[in-house]
Amino acid sequence: MDSQLVVGIDVGGQTTKLGVVDARGTVLAQTVIRTDTYDTVEPYIEELAEALKKIVREAGAEGNIRGIGVGAPNGNYYTGTIADAPNIAWGRKGIIPFAKLLSSRIGGLPVALTNDANAAAVGEMTYGAARGMKNFIMITLGTGVGSGIVINGEIVYGHDGFAGELGHTTAVRNNGRICNCGRTGCLEAYCSAIGVARTAREWLQLTNEPSALRSLDNITSKDIYEAAKDGDKLALKVFDFTGRMLGRSFADFVAFSAPEAIVLFGGLARAKEFLIGPIEEAMNESLLNLWKGKIKIVFSQLKESDAAILGASALAWELDK
Amino acid sequence: MDSQLVVGIDVGGQTTKLGVVDARGTVLAQTVIRTDTYDTVEPYIEELAEALKKIVREAGAEGNIRGIGVGAPNGNYYTGTIADAPNIAWGRKGIIPFAKLLSSRIGGLPVALTNDANAAAVGEMTYGAARGMKNFIMITLGTGVGSGIVINGEIVYGHDGFAGELGHTTAVRNNGRICNCGRTGCLEAYCSAIGVARTAREWLQLTNEPSALRSLDNITSKDIYEAAKDGDKLALKVFDFTGRMLGRSFADFVAFSAPEAIVLFGGLARAKEFLIGPIEEAMNESLLNLWKGKIKIVFSQLKESDAAILGASALAWELDK
Repeated sequence: MDSQLVVGIDVGGQTTKLGVVDARGTVLAQTVIRTDTYDTVEPYIEELAEALKKIVREAGAEGNIRGIGVGAPNGNYYTGTIADAPNIAWGRKGIIPFAKLLSSRIGGLPVALTNDANAAAVGEMTYGAARGMKNFIMITLGTGVGSGIVINGEIVYGHDGFAGELGHTTAVRNNGRICNCGRTGCLEAYCSAIGVARTAREWLQLTNEPSALRSLDNITSKDIYEAAKDGDKLALKVFDFTGRMLGRSFADFVAFSAPEAIVLFGGLARAKEFLIGPIEEAMNESLLNLWKGKIKIVFSQLKESDAAILGASALAWELDK
Repeated sequence: MDSQLVVGIDVGGQTTKLGVVDARGTVLAQTVIRTDTYDTVEPYIEELAEALKKIVREAGAEGNIRGIGVGAPNGNYYTGTIADAPNIAWGRKGIIPFAKLLSSRIGGLPVALTNDANAAAVGEMTYGAARGMKNFIMITLGTGVGSGIVINGEIVYGHDGFAGELGHTTAVRNNGRICNCGRTGCLEAYCSAIGVARTAREWLQLTNEPSALRSLDNITSKDIYEAAKDGDKLALKVFDFTGRMLGRSFADFVAFSAPEAIVLFGGLARAKEFLIGPIEEAMNESLLNLWKGKIKIVFSQLKESDAAILGASALAWELDK
């Protein structure tokens, strides 16, 4: 029988999702294990390998797995390592040879690893909104702002494997917000889920504008989205501001790699209806004439519950290339 | 006999330089024709073809030319065309099928064409400071600020062939200088030869600071360089400001493609001694921790008089790949 299936593993700070996936992007079997209950990597890998064997059996895919793809924070494609990942208990310090550790526990099957945003980009190119595209930029709008850049059909890893940190390009040059990375003015400090909540909180403090958000203790981006759907003016303005910030930065990204499209993914991308207008307007205002009106903004087409697994799994199809 | 030689053609607004080049980057024969004395492209191509035949004869290279590389403003690698080049009389309006026109006048020899900054990047990779590098960004500091981006050993052309307009990324978000492209705050408006002269003129107007530049009617970047060499404080501050602007933008470029180095080229890059310090300082202040101190800033190693021809010629070596 041909090796026609792959496994995708999405390593998150709290949980790790894994699934067996076929060439059309159907998840045949999947499961979840905890990431955050281990202080060292070895017992975690042990449980991950067991879970993996279980879903491979469930999918009837023994001996039929072509390879494993892993999306993980601070994952390095070149080295297969996870380096100093602040949100993972066992990954916080030093460099974990993740791909090697996992591969040796599962009979030497090949393991490809990259960061979650790059995995999402490969997933979108393989199964989703970027099918057939050779040049696009994936922007993930989640807790942070991540990015995966595809040029000539390939993810850009750069000299050291860490290319594509567009969330940490400078959106506000002077007096910008402090970012988690220690610098100021990063796009992520404004346009992540956390950044959006911060914008709302700042504006509630600075103005007297009435808003349903005033009654909430701890505002999240989801609250702002719900309020916007109810027509809350302040919430709508928050999305307008966020979309415009994104659009202006996107214009700079376009000047770099002249992509066919920018693909948006992640929790915040659910607010598509409120973001798309301001993004396109601000981007086109800021673009060089030659690109005005020509760069598509598209949203992920992967089923949200499967997206993380699909993205990681797509890496494994590249293993033999 | 093997086809061991190539021809490089650099199309500038006033003159066109062309030369026969060997694999080691030696210019065996070269000449110059006018660009600006033709209103239409056909008679220009006619003279260019004659000049080309002459230098090929001079180099004893008849029947031994592998291909022709052309660097030209607004040159598009995919289509071999020059599109709406504002500084070229015969190129101002519409799309000139340059590669096709030239090839058909010289017996069908293959012609590769790209913009001048991309040509410079290929030149530097083939013969110069970027030999052996697979990932770097070329920044040309001339009348404008151009760029050529190399990823995995290949120039990034993007979806439409126009990638790499880093001179038109936004360096100043609000109240920025008007740029030739019609937008405001572009890096080029500050860090080109023209931008640097503008900085000096602004500062002379806004302050009473003594400076040798006050006595000049029409300040050029060369004047500022000469003054800086004489220790003129205002001139030194102009370079400090320019270098810091470049360094901060470079940090954003690094976040995109994680290059091994940024290579500087062009008239203004002669002021290396005054630019390198502020560039490196500002870039490292602005970089994510993982890149601090790791990105090389290097200056072109091509002989300046030959550089334009060499850059264009290097494209021709890629023709058979």
